Amino acid sequence: MPNPTAAMLVIGDEILSGRTRDANMHHLAQELTKVGINLREVRIVSDDRDAIVSALNDLRAAHDTVITSGGIGPTHDDITADCVAAAFGVHVDVRDDAAALLQAHYDSRGMEFNDARKRMARIPDGATLIENPVSIAPGFTIGNVHVMAGVPSVFQAMVASVIPTLTGGAPILSQTLRVDRGEGDIAGPLGRIAEEFPDLSIGSYPFQQNGAYGSNIVVRGSDGVQVDHAMARLAELFTA
Amino acid sequence: MPNPTAAMLVIGDEILSGRTRDANMHHLAQELTKVGINLREVRIVSDDRDAIVSALNDLRAAHDTVITSGGIGPTHDDITADCVAAAFGVHVDVRDDAAALLQAHYDSRGMEFNDARKRMARIPDGATLIENPVSIAPGFTIGNVHVMAGVPSVFQAMVASVIPTLTGGAPILSQTLRVDRGEGDIAGPLGRIAEEFPDLSIGSYPFQQNGAYGSNIVVRGSDGVQVDHAMARLAELFTA
Repeated sequence: MPNPTAAMLVIGDEILSGRTRDANMHHLAQELTKVGINLREVRIVSDDRDAIVSALNDLRAAHDTVITSGGIGPTHDDITADCVAAAFGVHVDVRDDAAALLQAHYDSRGMEFNDARKRMARIPDGATLIENPVSIAPGFTIGNVHVMAGVPSVFQAMVASVIPTLTGGAPILSQTLRVDRGEGDIAGPLGRIAEEFPDLSIGSYPFQQNGAYGSNIVVRGSDGVQVDHAMARLAELFTA
Repeated sequence: MPNPTAAMLVIGDEILSGRTRDANMHHLAQELTKVGINLREVRIVSDDRDAIVSALNDLRAAHDTVITSGGIGPTHDDITADCVAAAFGVHVDVRDDAAALLQAHYDSRGMEFNDARKRMARIPDGATLIENPVSIAPGFTIGNVHVMAGVPSVFQAMVASVIPTLTGGAPILSQTLRVDRGEGDIAGPLGRIAEEFPDLSIGSYPFQQNGAYGSNIVVRGSDGVQVDHAMARLAELFTA
């Protein structure tokens, strides 16, 4: 059975302008791999309604699971909840359950639950909330789409609470063989081994160290016996 | 006149599996910003022919310029040149000019220009070469698409040689105001200022430091007078 697939949609001008380096994609990629879900595509779009709605509709049709990050805060450029509602064709407004969480949080700190903060309780109809133990303002799940915050500590907490709810696959095993020869030297036989093991993904990643070329050959797959077998064949060929 | 737009297509399983952290996107974002080109979208896809062709056709139709990274080496998983040719509906084969560059390079090092290395001379019909001063194997430009290597040092060299050939726009100016108040406190007035300056992009990026919340307000635009004016209004409101 093939592994389930996922896509990620990163929403935010700050990454596209080069101001901020995205940290969430790398974290999500690693967490999904652990539970046997293949992250197949990532899109990064700006804070633009049409771009967000269109990317979201493409991705949710093509993959088992979509995870978004960014754009669910209190400021004018936080438009993700409205865009997700538009993509699903549902109504969105401040919802009582989300508002109650935030009201209690601000009350306990003696802070005003003002109109801007109420934006963080805008939840599309039919969505369920994703808990935010870091700063309370919830994410939400609608259909196969999980909407999370962009702040890395909050994103990671939300990923941790959503991952156990997803249908995973056989764990994706990965082994790496370091070969101190350039890719051009090993590419011929490597390609033949890749053909021998069509169910595995065999990649080659070149590096340069102390002026010499080398390659890391990475074998990935969910069948441990095949992965071991391919690694043995590679070691025999390239490290003799 | 609006700034020209660009998109980036990152090709490579190693980023989606969480094995490698992409470094090229951040570099490209900063270089494009310097010449007034708006990076509007990034897509990361796996080494899959259909995914690459379809993403490339979407992006080149929607943006003035597309830059790809990855998948132009000598191994079996390097399929970018073939995918670009398929997207443009043109023939691709080993081309004399690219082969001559590589032949001279390997001759000078006493290395064999074997079949695997000849893959790096596969160039779609009608493309022009992008120089690679680091490891010789060229990138190429076809239509509005610039195809570059994934290895960061090579990618950066190729970006440096392509950027001067692109039509830029007015430089995009950026100023940041740090406010030691949480987003929920400032969001109301900030939204009103964003409405006053529809030609600027005004973003708010929350942070937490020593247990206190703060926000960096970033004002971006190509009209320096407007950027200064907006910054003055923000400073008056939030740092008084």
